[in-house]
Amino acid sequence: MNLARVAQRLGITESRLQCLQETIIRESAWPEPRLLRFEKESSGVEAGTVIFENGEIAFGYPKIRRPLMLAAAIERHFSNRVAVEEKMNGHNVRILSINGEIVALTRGGFICPYSTEVARSKIPEEVFEKHPQRILCGEMVGPENPYVASSIYPTESIDFYLFDLAEKNSRTTSGVHRTHELAEEYGLLSAALLGEFSKETAAERIKEIVIKLGRQGREGVVMKDPENEVPPLKYTSSKTNCSDLSVAFRYYNDYALDFFVSRAVREGFQSVEWKESEEERRKRALSLGESILLPLVDTIKRAQMGENIVQKVQIRVKNLQTARDFEYHLRRSGIRTIFEPPEPDDGGYLIRITKLVMSTNDKTQALLNGEMW
Amino acid sequence: MNLARVAQRLGITESRLQCLQETIIRESAWPEPRLLRFEKESSGVEAGTVIFENGEIAFGYPKIRRPLMLAAAIERHFSNRVAVEEKMNGHNVRILSINGEIVALTRGGFICPYSTEVARSKIPEEVFEKHPQRILCGEMVGPENPYVASSIYPTESIDFYLFDLAEKNSRTTSGVHRTHELAEEYGLLSAALLGEFSKETAAERIKEIVIKLGRQGREGVVMKDPENEVPPLKYTSSKTNCSDLSVAFRYYNDYALDFFVSRAVREGFQSVEWKESEEERRKRALSLGESILLPLVDTIKRAQMGENIVQKVQIRVKNLQTARDFEYHLRRSGIRTIFEPPEPDDGGYLIRITKLVMSTNDKTQALLNGEMW
Repeated sequence: MNLARVAQRLGITESRLQCLQETIIRESAWPEPRLLRFEKESSGVEAGTVIFENGEIAFGYPKIRRPLMLAAAIERHFSNRVAVEEKMNGHNVRILSINGEIVALTRGGFICPYSTEVARSKIPEEVFEKHPQRILCGEMVGPENPYVASSIYPTESIDFYLFDLAEKNSRTTSGVHRTHELAEEYGLLSAALLGEFSKETAAERIKEIVIKLGRQGREGVVMKDPENEVPPLKYTSSKTNCSDLSVAFRYYNDYALDFFVSRAVREGFQSVEWKESEEERRKRALSLGESILLPLVDTIKRAQMGENIVQKVQIRVKNLQTARDFEYHLRRSGIRTIFEPPEPDDGGYLIRITKLVMSTNDKTQALLNGEMW
Repeated sequence: MNLARVAQRLGITESRLQCLQETIIRESAWPEPRLLRFEKESSGVEAGTVIFENGEIAFGYPKIRRPLMLAAAIERHFSNRVAVEEKMNGHNVRILSINGEIVALTRGGFICPYSTEVARSKIPEEVFEKHPQRILCGEMVGPENPYVASSIYPTESIDFYLFDLAEKNSRTTSGVHRTHELAEEYGLLSAALLGEFSKETAAERIKEIVIKLGRQGREGVVMKDPENEVPPLKYTSSKTNCSDLSVAFRYYNDYALDFFVSRAVREGFQSVEWKESEEERRKRALSLGESILLPLVDTIKRAQMGENIVQKVQIRVKNLQTARDFEYHLRRSGIRTIFEPPEPDDGGYLIRITKLVMSTNDKTQALLNGEMW
């Protein structure tokens, strides 16, 4: 690897790169190709940025920021028009071709064997043939997404939805219009473009869209500058905030503490911004309370009946090696699982996976036995 | 100070004490008498333990642990009978006489000038005359408690309620019966003794008591072994959990994150243990949701109207110097305040205090302006 060139592409000095290699850059030798990944943001380089053995770089996908007051943020952030795309609920991947092979990188910069198999089956090779520099940024969603399973999208397994385009060795992205053109050109699925509004009307229209999406169990929106000159913003429905809370309280001892508070605070701002009536506020409070209390009650009752508190997901693979590799990948990511024996199905294999949520399980059992909090 | 003797009283070696003096023991030279205080628990010595200049030690009051499943915990923890006392909602102080003067120590081991003035007016000197080793452990409560103001107790200002007795240089406490005897002997107020139950019936009776206390806006109970052989436990009403959440969400950016989650989880366990019906659970969810949403909405609306987000409290002092000292005491405790000019009242002074909650105030203003979370 030519360190000087890599440092230049990252926009840092060679000596700084050497320092980072001893601290926040981690090597990942598996699956091939070997790569270095930024475990955290540093020196202006996004977390999840990957440097491949051949010196090519895939920058981490920038974190999309979230306003709590929609209208004020739109007014402040955008210069003219606002394009609105659906925000999908799955896991973010970057798909690219390296040494002629398609791989899918997770947010953290690992090659995920399962996402890679899915990418290879969904993305035609031609996407990269004339443009080996191309990086497809998008969301993997569906009921057979083992990170975030969701049944609201039109797939029985898992699909890839494009939402942005990037290039190797570059931080720039192509913007909303070029992304949807490319999706059309190659027949790729892409995050639905829900409209483009003037800055003045956007907040009101987005409110309507978000409420409608919420009713359908969909997550929310990403707002983009059609000219791609300012970074996108995201905004979610009350339904999503509550359903996030619901999952978090089901596994209350395995979630970061700020996860809980941030969702609740979003509800407060949305209720104020949308000038809710007392009755609407009461309904929101009930949903909020139920999304906290009911999953807790369910978890405690299950533990009381001697059930282990676990999360069940499933994947579908063509190649059994992918499942074995994915098992290893989850383990290295710190997720403890039990993989059931593969069930042959439709030319591939269905594999049921039990994710252990040890901390909630053990804590709940202890508390039921009269131990102290 | 005779280090060897102090170390022996603390139950640690002299060299260990010297190490601690360079790390977790802090000096407090004001108000007199000078003292050393344990900022954190260490070497088995409770946080808040105080060593006075003359070598006398006041051990920190032990943290009372909380079960989430009442019946299981009682069964596991107590050997025979359970005495139930009201848990009062104020701040915990240790009152003792040092060099012939009464002082009140906060949980953290500071001498609080305001609590000290209150203690001197409420506690007859005779309590310590024959027993200079005595330490009164109790709760300061009332609407003029500037730490935790509460109007549910029968005082228009602030009162001291005894709940335990300790001795200087000793970790042992006297237990519930001796404490109430002493209160009676000297005419001190004490935390109400609500009954003594057999281990088998205690959980059911405590449930009834806690529900009743909750309805009155009172906090909950402390369960004690009448023989004083195992440490006490505490348990609170749903009303208290929700009202804690309510305060925390009103000042959502100034509270520790675990404060929020622990209260919600208590609600889940209580609902399961009390085998609530769907309708009862719905009511609990609504209270929980409202205690989160409504204070948030209130804070955001106030900020929207340009109001500063602050907490208003008041104290009543006999001596103006106490107010000045208390202002300094709050400042050294990291609490930012504005003290209004004293209003002469009934032979003393009423002083209104505005506690600034900078973090919530600034965050809310920023979010209202369209900044990102």
